[in-house]
Amino acid sequence: MAIRVTVWNENVHERTDPKIGQVYPAGIHGALAELLGNAGDISVRTATLDMPEHGLNEAVLEDTDVLVWWGHLAHDQVSDEVVDRVQRHVLRGMGLLVLHSGHMSKVFTRLMGTSCTLDWRDNDRERVWCCMPSHPIAEGVPLSFEIAEEEMYCEPFDVPQPDELVFIGWFQGGEVFRSGCCYHRGYGRVFYFQPGHEAFPTYRTHPSVRRILVNAVRWATPARRRGPLECRMVDPAESGAPRI
Amino acid sequence: MAIRVTVWNENVHERTDPKIGQVYPAGIHGALAELLGNAGDISVRTATLDMPEHGLNEAVLEDTDVLVWWGHLAHDQVSDEVVDRVQRHVLRGMGLLVLHSGHMSKVFTRLMGTSCTLDWRDNDRERVWCCMPSHPIAEGVPLSFEIAEEEMYCEPFDVPQPDELVFIGWFQGGEVFRSGCCYHRGYGRVFYFQPGHEAFPTYRTHPSVRRILVNAVRWATPARRRGPLECRMVDPAESGAPRI
Amino acid sequence: MAIRVTVWNENVHERTDPKIGQVYPAGIHGALAELLGNAGDISVRTATLDMPEHGLNEAVLEDTDVLVWWGHLAHDQVSDEVVDRVQRHVLRGMGLLVLHSGHMSKVFTRLMGTSCTLDWRDNDRERVWCCMPSHPIAEGVPLSFEIAEEEMYCEPFDVPQPDELVFIGWFQGGEVFRSGCCYHRGYGRVFYFQPGHEAFPTYRTHPSVRRILVNAVRWATPARRRGPLECRMVDPAESGAPRI
Amino acid sequence: MAIRVTVWNENVHERTDPKIGQVYPAGIHGALAELLGNAGDISVRTATLDMPEHGLNEAVLEDTDVLVWWGHLAHDQVSDEVVDRVQRHVLRGMGLLVLHSGHMSKVFTRLMGTSCTLDWRDNDRERVWCCMPSHPIAEGVPLSFEIAEEEMYCEPFDVPQPDELVFIGWFQGGEVFRSGCCYHRGYGRVFYFQPGHEAFPTYRTHPSVRRILVNAVRWATPARRRGPLECRMVDPAESGAPRI
Repeated sequence: MAIRVTVWNENVHERTDPKIGQVYPAGIHGALAELLGNAGDISVRTATLDMPEHGLNEAVLEDTDVLVWWGHLAHDQVSDEVVDRVQRHVLRGMGLLVLHSGHMSKVFTRLMGTSCTLDWRDNDRERVWCCMPSHPIAEGVPLSFEIAEEEMYCEPFDVPQPDELVFIGWFQGGEVFRSGCCYHRGYGRVFYFQPGHEAFPTYRTHPSVRRILVNAVRWATPARRRGPLECRMVDPAESGAPRI
Repeated sequence: MAIRVTVWNENVHERTDPKIGQVYPAGIHGALAELLGNAGDISVRTATLDMPEHGLNEAVLEDTDVLVWWGHLAHDQVSDEVVDRVQRHVLRGMGLLVLHSGHMSKVFTRLMGTSCTLDWRDNDRERVWCCMPSHPIAEGVPLSFEIAEEEMYCEPFDVPQPDELVFIGWFQGGEVFRSGCCYHRGYGRVFYFQPGHEAFPTYRTHPSVRRILVNAVRWATPARRRGPLECRMVDPAESGAPRI
Repeated sequence: MAIRVTVWNENVHERTDPKIGQVYPAGIHGALAELLGNAGDISVRTATLDMPEHGLNEAVLEDTDVLVWWGHLAHDQVSDEVVDRVQRHVLRGMGLLVLHSGHMSKVFTRLMGTSCTLDWRDNDRERVWCCMPSHPIAEGVPLSFEIAEEEMYCEPFDVPQPDELVFIGWFQGGEVFRSGCCYHRGYGRVFYFQPGHEAFPTYRTHPSVRRILVNAVRWATPARRRGPLECRMVDPAESGAPRI
Repeated sequence: MAIRVTVWNENVHERTDPKIGQVYPAGIHGALAELLGNAGDISVRTATLDMPEHGLNEAVLEDTDVLVWWGHLAHDQVSDEVVDRVQRHVLRGMGLLVLHSGHMSKVFTRLMGTSCTLDWRDNDRERVWCCMPSHPIAEGVPLSFEIAEEEMYCEPFDVPQPDELVFIGWFQGGEVFRSGCCYHRGYGRVFYFQPGHEAFPTYRTHPSVRRILVNAVRWATPARRRGPLECRMVDPAESGAPRI
């Protein structure tokens, strides 16, 4: 059975800035959907900010194995109700990939519990290094690869220590960044991946970045969905019985 | 210079249930304040739900090294504004001790990013085991100790994997629980500690629990306070310069 | 392609103690081999202490995806040369499952770097709790299950903090133990699992323990094998080139 | 009471290569001893490879709170008996700082359980970034600082995931490295710190590196020493009693 992915994009840059529109004519969500849809074992739908409930109603999330998130300019336009819903589904098992400037999105800061701030600068050259080459997300990817043009993000990155730190970014200007971070939250798996500035066609053209995204979707796919998130009173009578 | 502690308590059980009032005549906050105040290197103030801004205005938090949190019945009466403020101060360096039923408090779930749910049952016997005896919080505490009467909390406890798991609780009815969990969030340190049901005078009488609380305050005391939580643009001109 | 498992057993209890021989007529290795061989996607061979090179020569390990290890009385009879070889293969990607009293084996203490000591007592009732139910090793297993008869192991268990703590054991006598611990070492994955005292037919009869062993083999199966373990000088000329 | 530090150095480069002898006229151990001795709360002794038992007999280690280790050319000349002894003391509580090329020392690989290999290149410019600025080892140190001349070390560094990753190194040639890694092993704390190539007077002159070393000694100082490393049988009669 195919992995069911929903790619969410605020879709603002692409419509308001002609340069970005040229880089991603089908939107960043369109590029990501095409990439993932070609993997063979993934079925993709897309959702954007301007749709009712941002395209993420209960039925959509219930039908989603992994949600991919790209946002930047419009983080504060995402409704808290949708953020609550996404968080609840992640804790119940839905996978989540948060890309690039999504580090400041409400869904990511909610799941991290920290500010997720970092320092940054436009236009640099990045080299991404793998520091956990046995990780499934690194499978088939060189130990290091370059991204000719990328926005610089640097430490300190205000996130919890990753459960698994897979990639570290090197920037020519002299900075480093924890570029690929895995987290387990509830029954869900979360992967933050730094590359993907809107001004460059990275998601359309970079083979290692593209391979990592496919790997990450597979890694984040849950085996099952947890039931309601609640505190349950254990009856003394059932104390000796196995819990399901 | 003394460690500045603010003990926060919703202070509801003690005033609405005469039995609890007898267990904690000065309130749970009063008992904790007395305990910590006697440590020698700690100066304590208390704050409760019914005070303006729950007693946690900007000036109080700025003047607090470690905040201790006890709540249960009234989690949803804590204003989001105060929760935002507490989170911001933790990320900037303020220590936080979350006790017992505080696992479902808004401040704790905010900082964890998970539901923090667990299963539970009234009235059991607990034995607390140390699985990281070299940790400062375990200093001077036996490798295991009993609490004759305690509410049972059991796994799965929906929290991120602790950065340091110090204590595991054993319950006579057949359950286990990660009872002492350390987290680093921003510049702040967070310790969750499970013992302390309101129906038993644990904080007034149990030597190991009391020692752990004093240890935890010292462990959570920050060396410094971070500045504003923001993403800063790094000027290319300063790229080569050391960051402070 | 089937997962290639080698089950290693010192095979001493079964041959020297008639009671144990009755519990495991085909040896513990025989029982484990039967269990894993029936999983459908696993091909199994066995190896024992008395074989040349303990049955673990270079060719066997090169042909092994996951090595399962059971030992107790004869840890010190395992040659250092074989321990070196097993460690090298784990670091290059071979998975390793260490069972029960194998916590004091040379291969486990070598890979942990600690004493791996614990406290213990014969004959108790255990209940195993899952504290990371989303983990692949916990798939299809109840959140808690009982083992009617098991040797008691208790904290503090002198191992590094697990990368993933999946199970915690509760013992009726009043103890707890980190019973299911995952480690990443080099390219290899290591799982320590506490149940399986030789005096009880647990591996032959307990459905949850059996399911966990199959899950653990699948989890520990590597995607690839790393090359030689060596420090490589990076030629300045290739500094800009991607590393494979 | 002063922290008792023993600085160990193989002391080979300084005596066999006149250039290195000029960089460290008193030996690397002499420079480290002077630096730490000036901290105010540290008393220092030194030990070298050519001393009986490499200067690390039982009495010396019993009297040592933190051992500092520098080695490179002569790792294989360190006797296994001394390595056993150092490991045992670390597990019982002695702190350990492993510097630079010490990553391949027997004491470090023993405590890590991995190959500790990395890639490298002579003479580069490094910038060290702090990714956990609230850590005691980072206290008083800029968020990033430069080392004008340093040997390049790069990922993948074959060590277990650090319990706390404090520093990441950036190298001008295009590489990154986990340069400051904390581990808890038994009752002991271990800090690996990458800077300090013998060809440059870093330990004598670099204020941030020097501050980090003093911080690390204080961080690694144990509160107590564990007793023998052994598995203890728990008598059923004492099962209910607290363990010390």
